[in-house]
Amino acid sequence: MAPPPLPPEVEEMLRRPNPAVIATLRADGAPVTVATWYLYKDGQIIVNMDAGRRRLAHVRRDPRVSLTILDDNDWGTHVSVQGRITLSDDPNLASIDEIARHYTGQAYPIRDRERVVGVVEIQTWHGWGRFASLS
Amino acid sequence: MAPPPLPPEVEEMLRRPNPAVIATLRADGAPVTVATWYLYKDGQIIVNMDAGRRRLAHVRRDPRVSLTILDDNDWGTHVSVQGRITLSDDPNLASIDEIARHYTGQAYPIRDRERVVGVVEIQTWHGWGRFASLS
Repeated sequence: MAPPPLPPEVEEMLRRPNPAVIATLRADGAPVTVATWYLYKDGQIIVNMDAGRRRLAHVRRDPRVSLTILDDNDWGTHVSVQGRITLSDDPNLASIDEIARHYTGQAYPIRDRERVVGVVEIQTWHGWGRFASLS
Repeated sequence: MAPPPLPPEVEEMLRRPNPAVIATLRADGAPVTVATWYLYKDGQIIVNMDAGRRRLAHVRRDPRVSLTILDDNDWGTHVSVQGRITLSDDPNLASIDEIARHYTGQAYPIRDRERVVGVVEIQTWHGWGRFASLS
């Protein structure tokens, strides 16, 4: 585990549309994981959730999250980050559209549901595979 | 979230050598995620760790874990399971060899480090993508 900043080669990988998994904490403190889209931007991880997601109640109660991002070319290389998430509205779906375009080339197809932006401030990170020696 | 058993088509996916991420809990209760190999066997998830891993101390203190398994053909389909992990020794590295063969076709290359087997008893699961309607 190392504190930020992340090395440039790690940042370059994180900027690609990779598979990722986020862990949040249930009310009883148990971890819950789910696959997620994300954006790496200004040294932070941006995620986005439907306003009805149970995951939102989890992070409102305890904002500690962990993400593992798998290199889309070879998942033997992966990066994990731990940090705290801050939530805000996503009016006009501008943030989810940016993320959807990053992954699919298109705006987000579901337009009639409110979305919430989550910004993860990275506190520690660790790399494996070709990043093993960097963290 | 649904209790086991998992539907046959989900089990079929889980039996392939897919990318997966496991979340454990740090001493302070924060989640930590990392990519992992796994085997799905007899309705349980088998993982394996180097005996020196900090993750072992985490799960000895709190055995609650969550895994997300991504379909290796299309990670828009993924399955998450929550459960408790039970640890045991891996003498002769039989279990890590079985897992390594599943992913790489070969025995595990590092022979001079002790390994620990983790068996995750599935308590709840959820599917997305082509499994969204099943859980």
